[in-house]
Amino acid sequence: MHTLYQFHLSGNCYKVRLTARHASIPIALQDVDIIGGETRGHAFLKLNPNGRVPTLVLEDGRALPESNAIMWFLAEDTALLPADKWARAQILQWLFFEQYSHEPYIATRRYWVAFAPLEARKTKDHMLQPWLDGGYAALGVMEQHLAAQDWFAAGQFTIADIALYAYTHVAHEGGFDLKPYPAVLRWLDRVARQPGHMTIAARA
Amino acid sequence: MHTLYQFHLSGNCYKVRLTARHASIPIALQDVDIIGGETRGHAFLKLNPNGRVPTLVLEDGRALPESNAIMWFLAEDTALLPADKWARAQILQWLFFEQYSHEPYIATRRYWVAFAPLEARKTKDHMLQPWLDGGYAALGVMEQHLAAQDWFAAGQFTIADIALYAYTHVAHEGGFDLKPYPAVLRWLDRVARQPGHMTIAARA
Repeated sequence: MHTLYQFHLSGNCYKVRLTARHASIPIALQDVDIIGGETRGHAFLKLNPNGRVPTLVLEDGRALPESNAIMWFLAEDTALLPADKWARAQILQWLFFEQYSHEPYIATRRYWVAFAPLEARKTKDHMLQPWLDGGYAALGVMEQHLAAQDWFAAGQFTIADIALYAYTHVAHEGGFDLKPYPAVLRWLDRVARQPGHMTIAARA
Repeated sequence: MHTLYQFHLSGNCYKVRLTARHASIPIALQDVDIIGGETRGHAFLKLNPNGRVPTLVLEDGRALPESNAIMWFLAEDTALLPADKWARAQILQWLFFEQYSHEPYIATRRYWVAFAPLEARKTKDHMLQPWLDGGYAALGVMEQHLAAQDWFAAGQFTIADIALYAYTHVAHEGGFDLKPYPAVLRWLDRVARQPGHMTIAARA
């Protein structure tokens, strides 16, 4: 069985659990104390020299970091990742959008507002507004897309939806108000009603 | 023929040109004035609502943003993107590393130090050190990998190498010193010696 090194409330780790669930691939969870610095320790850096969770470790010891790369690996040969070349290009487009234009604002603000040690939070006060602006810009791009389409790519539920769902559905924890984004809210509900869905809090 | 909407000195756009060259796919270049705000204008936002270059437009009008998604699309069925599932997972790992842990520091510092309008640069003075720290952390991860292997994934030259080459080979323009990264320097030379290589300045 694969082992997922993870921090349970991280959206990036939730992406992998939700993909594994929808792909019916069993994974073992190994919790890592990212706030306490465990991802910067020697043992973890041997798995991922970039010092980040999630990292998936296969039974033979091979390790794969990067949430969206892990999702792709688990979703191959399932309905979450259609074989069509253009469909895959569009899925990748949204996966890179998520990591470059969405996560650095919406996930980062949530971390510093809701999870970071209290003393450390003050050092990021000057970033609260830029993170808000960047996050709302990303939500605007999503709203425009979802006003005309039910899903992000290929006309069906794919790993592009899982990737963007992970931090969008908890954006309020970072201080984002989703009410001005009705198409995003309807899409969040659509994802949550997929058969087999599980919440970010669920262990399995 | 595909048309690449691009800013010529952008490493993200260079990635696409270099991939197209190695894949022997002809593309037409359409320059976009990103510094003058053309990517935020109505006409461009119809192509890419996220307002960024590169964006590839196919002959039938379909548009694909995100440099690494475009590279993947162009490289399918070529030696730049092997079919093996684990090789592809590793390529994606490095493509996401590039967009999350490398480009936001190394490319962003280069833009603000070397290309941004002079007046605007002052507004980013407080970011110069964080960008330097993040960039050197990424270079450290690359150095560790390349000390033991010639290429980033699959034991051969792939789009993972092209993605990381694009901004690493011009990192000095952003104030980065690569001398402490000898394996990175050897790899840069290896990429530049690939048959068919072209420089960031070349038009075709």
